[in-house]
Amino acid sequence: MGDWHEAPVRVRYEETDRQGVVYHGKYFEYFEVGRTEWLRARGLVYRDLEAGGLTLVVAEARARYLAPARYDDLLTVRTRLERMGHASVDFAYEIRRGEERLAEGSTLLVSIGPDGRPRRLVPELAALGREGAT
Amino acid sequence: MGDWHEAPVRVRYEETDRQGVVYHGKYFEYFEVGRTEWLRARGLVYRDLEAGGLTLVVAEARARYLAPARYDDLLTVRTRLERMGHASVDFAYEIRRGEERLAEGSTLLVSIGPDGRPRRLVPELAALGREGAT
Amino acid sequence: MGDWHEAPVRVRYEETDRQGVVYHGKYFEYFEVGRTEWLRARGLVYRDLEAGGLTLVVAEARARYLAPARYDDLLTVRTRLERMGHASVDFAYEIRRGEERLAEGSTLLVSIGPDGRPRRLVPELAALGREGAT
Amino acid sequence: MGDWHEAPVRVRYEETDRQGVVYHGKYFEYFEVGRTEWLRARGLVYRDLEAGGLTLVVAEARARYLAPARYDDLLTVRTRLERMGHASVDFAYEIRRGEERLAEGSTLLVSIGPDGRPRRLVPELAALGREGAT
Repeated sequence: MGDWHEAPVRVRYEETDRQGVVYHGKYFEYFEVGRTEWLRARGLVYRDLEAGGLTLVVAEARARYLAPARYDDLLTVRTRLERMGHASVDFAYEIRRGEERLAEGSTLLVSIGPDGRPRRLVPELAALGREGAT
Repeated sequence: MGDWHEAPVRVRYEETDRQGVVYHGKYFEYFEVGRTEWLRARGLVYRDLEAGGLTLVVAEARARYLAPARYDDLLTVRTRLERMGHASVDFAYEIRRGEERLAEGSTLLVSIGPDGRPRRLVPELAALGREGAT
Repeated sequence: MGDWHEAPVRVRYEETDRQGVVYHGKYFEYFEVGRTEWLRARGLVYRDLEAGGLTLVVAEARARYLAPARYDDLLTVRTRLERMGHASVDFAYEIRRGEERLAEGSTLLVSIGPDGRPRRLVPELAALGREGAT
Repeated sequence: MGDWHEAPVRVRYEETDRQGVVYHGKYFEYFEVGRTEWLRARGLVYRDLEAGGLTLVVAEARARYLAPARYDDLLTVRTRLERMGHASVDFAYEIRRGEERLAEGSTLLVSIGPDGRPRRLVPELAALGREGAT
């Protein structure tokens, strides 16, 4: 659903571990950079959405690692909207170095209200789902 | 397959984010603490296995988040061996605060050789799979 | 001023970098564990102090690194109150592995109010300064 | 000694803590981005220097925090060479958001050999000190 958005990420020293490669848990931070930039490319600043009352929590996250990323690699985080529900958003991700795919993953984000229960997505965000569907 | 091993983890300030809860990517670090302690409880020190030539890489990781963990919570990381293959190990995890389950997840670790290709698990580790199966 | 408090920290895989040692920035997280446990040993839970209106911000932090810490090391974080002012607290820290001193450092924390300006320490905390001074 | 080099860093969600601001320990990662890019601007890739046998370890690090950085802020990391010794390099840093200075700090890096003892800087790096001095 929709196109891949690409955002660059340069691997930091801190993100490596003693195997000399990027620690697997760090990829979820790259995915987050990806979805933030996906939104920004569509005119939405996630910080502003939060200020306006949106709270998205990560309900599920997964990654599959195909080849290691290394210090100072200039990676591309590719992000695509997979599905937008009434109160949820699914994204898919790929991490590439040039044409080589290093990892792929997905997240399920759920919009919640002050009571911690699912809450309809704010209209600005929901509109992106309709746009993607056409 | 086998019993749950329990290890305590105290949430650090750094692990929280501006939502006031533990950042979702941090749970993979907790899972790692869990499997390290699972091994230690069986007499194996993962650092020593690496020094002896074992390289385990994370090939897949996933988590499902049920309720937020907060700063200074004393969590329990529960770890269980799910399956041990010729060159791979599956673990399942739960993060609890008292009796409340906050998250569950799994990882697939693969043993690789210097060439980056799958390689039979070292005997000390493989032995734990046979033990767990009985 | 006052005695050293000791808290254990086990080095996690994620905390290492591709040099095979703990990344220097991580020591500030260990220092924070140290001061949290220093408080707990005196009957104060920092989370509760925050809930009661205290906001301590780190105004200065420094560390000197003497020898590397490695994966799975069981470290001791030693914390000592150096000085307590009207609106500030100075701590000194040492990181040891057994008797070996791996790092030492310090932080200056400042109590601030909702306006971001310095604000008198809450009485529970200020009382520890008087106690330490005797 | 020498000019300030400027590198952009966008604050990630993970880098914030429950006070809603960037965790103080993260600034040392920004400083590292700064010195890596300072080198790159002079034609040196730190990864390549390491591959060629250079090992720089952080011997001292300090930061002073003036105002908080927040999620999604586009920061500027300013880096300047302060001094280059036979086996050491001092950098100074500033973190700015627009014209506002949020933090300043410094690091002392020491070149070490396989035995862990100080070792003369590699010529490519030492040359930058002479250049900066003129």
